[in-house]
Amino acid sequence: MAPLLPATGAWMPGDPSGSRRFFRFPADRPFALDHGVTLHEVTIAYETWGQLAPGADNAILLCHAWTGDSHATGRAEDGHPTPGWWEGMIGPGLAIDTNSFFVVCANVLGGCQGSTGPASPHPDDGRPYGSRFPVVTVRDMVRSQARLADHLGVERWHSVIGGSMGGMQVLEWAITFPHRVGSIVPIATCLQATAQQIAWGAIGRRAVRLDPQWQGGDYYESAAGGGPWEGLSVARMVAQVTFRSDNAFTDRFGREVADHSPEGEGVGLWQRFEVERYLDYHGDKLGRRFDANSYLVIGKAMDLHDVARGRASIERATARIAAPTLVVGIASDILYPVYQQHQIRRSIQAAGTRAEFVEIDSPHGHDGFLINLDQMGSSVRHFLASLG
Amino acid sequence: MAPLLPATGAWMPGDPSGSRRFFRFPADRPFALDHGVTLHEVTIAYETWGQLAPGADNAILLCHAWTGDSHATGRAEDGHPTPGWWEGMIGPGLAIDTNSFFVVCANVLGGCQGSTGPASPHPDDGRPYGSRFPVVTVRDMVRSQARLADHLGVERWHSVIGGSMGGMQVLEWAITFPHRVGSIVPIATCLQATAQQIAWGAIGRRAVRLDPQWQGGDYYESAAGGGPWEGLSVARMVAQVTFRSDNAFTDRFGREVADHSPEGEGVGLWQRFEVERYLDYHGDKLGRRFDANSYLVIGKAMDLHDVARGRASIERATARIAAPTLVVGIASDILYPVYQQHQIRRSIQAAGTRAEFVEIDSPHGHDGFLINLDQMGSSVRHFLASLG
Repeated sequence: MAPLLPATGAWMPGDPSGSRRFFRFPADRPFALDHGVTLHEVTIAYETWGQLAPGADNAILLCHAWTGDSHATGRAEDGHPTPGWWEGMIGPGLAIDTNSFFVVCANVLGGCQGSTGPASPHPDDGRPYGSRFPVVTVRDMVRSQARLADHLGVERWHSVIGGSMGGMQVLEWAITFPHRVGSIVPIATCLQATAQQIAWGAIGRRAVRLDPQWQGGDYYESAAGGGPWEGLSVARMVAQVTFRSDNAFTDRFGREVADHSPEGEGVGLWQRFEVERYLDYHGDKLGRRFDANSYLVIGKAMDLHDVARGRASIERATARIAAPTLVVGIASDILYPVYQQHQIRRSIQAAGTRAEFVEIDSPHGHDGFLINLDQMGSSVRHFLASLG
Repeated sequence: MAPLLPATGAWMPGDPSGSRRFFRFPADRPFALDHGVTLHEVTIAYETWGQLAPGADNAILLCHAWTGDSHATGRAEDGHPTPGWWEGMIGPGLAIDTNSFFVVCANVLGGCQGSTGPASPHPDDGRPYGSRFPVVTVRDMVRSQARLADHLGVERWHSVIGGSMGGMQVLEWAITFPHRVGSIVPIATCLQATAQQIAWGAIGRRAVRLDPQWQGGDYYESAAGGGPWEGLSVARMVAQVTFRSDNAFTDRFGREVADHSPEGEGVGLWQRFEVERYLDYHGDKLGRRFDANSYLVIGKAMDLHDVARGRASIERATARIAAPTLVVGIASDILYPVYQQHQIRRSIQAAGTRAEFVEIDSPHGHDGFLINLDQMGSSVRHFLASLG
């Protein structure tokens, strides 16, 4: 069992803000979501690095993945439970060079690290949304980021870059706002979630729902102080296996045993192999820094991701893309296999727009874009340099 | 939520026996398990087809997979909640021809369709074992089948055939009892469970444990009559995705929606895509015919599968195999990828024993051995014919 924790790992008002800043939508500009609900109070938490040039032509938007947040680079410190998710990619002289670029990363709508999400207070009663939080889409995330761009004075991004769900946002940026995007780098992502991807997401949601502590989504004010940690942990384990690869697991864990039997005793049902201890560790760790309802809402947004929705077809959608594109895939990715990135490249090229494909040679699977930073960095650096 | 069901889908004494017969180990021959526990009452439920020849040289043993049972072929009927798992492979004139062969299939030790398992009465008090049931191994399963073979008068199997966990039993038969096995057909299986395979199994176990109805494994006498159906269902969903393939899911389900929104309303968090309905269906279906504790115990046996355990190395283990071997793999199998079957073939050949490899060209993934019966059938038929 996980140790007793508060009911959510979400950043809550009153917590140290760390490096984040907050953009609150003006009260006279409510935000209508794709699926019909209107949010009357929206806050987007974001971080920036580097300086915006006088012409505002050097801004790069980074889009984070499922359990990421605005903290793309920087230490773990008060207000930031983890170091930056792309530490080593962003900074002075690095691939995304903050001597040249003004870099922005925002926590997605529906997230739990400062942007409006299920743990945020509902304007009606000040209590957490919980089960009242609506379904959001990747397009909703992107449209909320467009308002942030307005606020920052960025009419057009020099580049929009992101992996996994971040890559979904990248594609939606280029399709929804073709004139606001100078170039894009969608990484380890897809044009539409496949049935298998939906299946993995759905299983995670079912695991959270199974946890009695989830309480239908209204667990924040639980008298016992517990949260759906076990369910979130199981959901995370499913994801964690799909984020890596068979070979990487074999190399790292093999059949090593974590919980050894007392001398002369046999194996028990719950004695763990090393790989199980690793999954427990990652599952428990997520609980300390995330919110179970955000996990559900963001997962659903990924399942609903489909650039063709309301746009007749994939071809009609991607024909809107005007931005030179670097598509990145990871050879060992079992969750977003490289055939999906080839589809992205082909469909953008089909409309006459420049699109290159680079394959990261990594044994680490989907997470390779967070791990193999030498290859990621040199690909992104060269692409940005090629834009002139 | 699943409809209210009895706490287990296990076959229980008093239920119709259907086609099964029961072999009870003699009271003076307790059964010592690999991990130290001794079972004093063991029953193995089995079915047979065809006639044992006077020389007892025409017997074929079929070994079932995780949620299989002795009902390898035959209708769903009283006592058999599902049709035979290899319907179409076994019968007069079929690939495993019951005009020539005496075919046996036994429910594994730890199972829930008539053989001793967690739902069986504990000899001490007549109440279900539940959490008291010990860890069993694939070798335990095989040694219990060897006692059944003695009982049936089969000194040596003409062939031992099985897929997935059935294939693990096949390999253990040939290694543990090389003189009792005339040939083997291990299908879509491996020499040792990998870290990724263990990970998938462990996640399923965690999902069952998360279900409050599991009650630490002692749910059989639950006053409310409930069982850990939801947890078992989530566990099954994990397995079901690994049993199939990305392409098969895309072809069959794509992004079709199962639960449509009322006119004018958006999508809800729990509205399902078709693939989710499919997973729900398979998860719920397993609950009606299986026992959650058997799912745990058998899953653990697979994780513990390692032909090298106690035998110094894989090479030393497989060098014991004297039986001509047909190894079958499935091209699209993501759970037991074909490199594992190539390892089996190579390690058997390395010791000078005949071993062939056939790859089933199937889009269906691991379950291909239960689906692509034309290819499976012709491979097995040719192999059996080649033995002379």
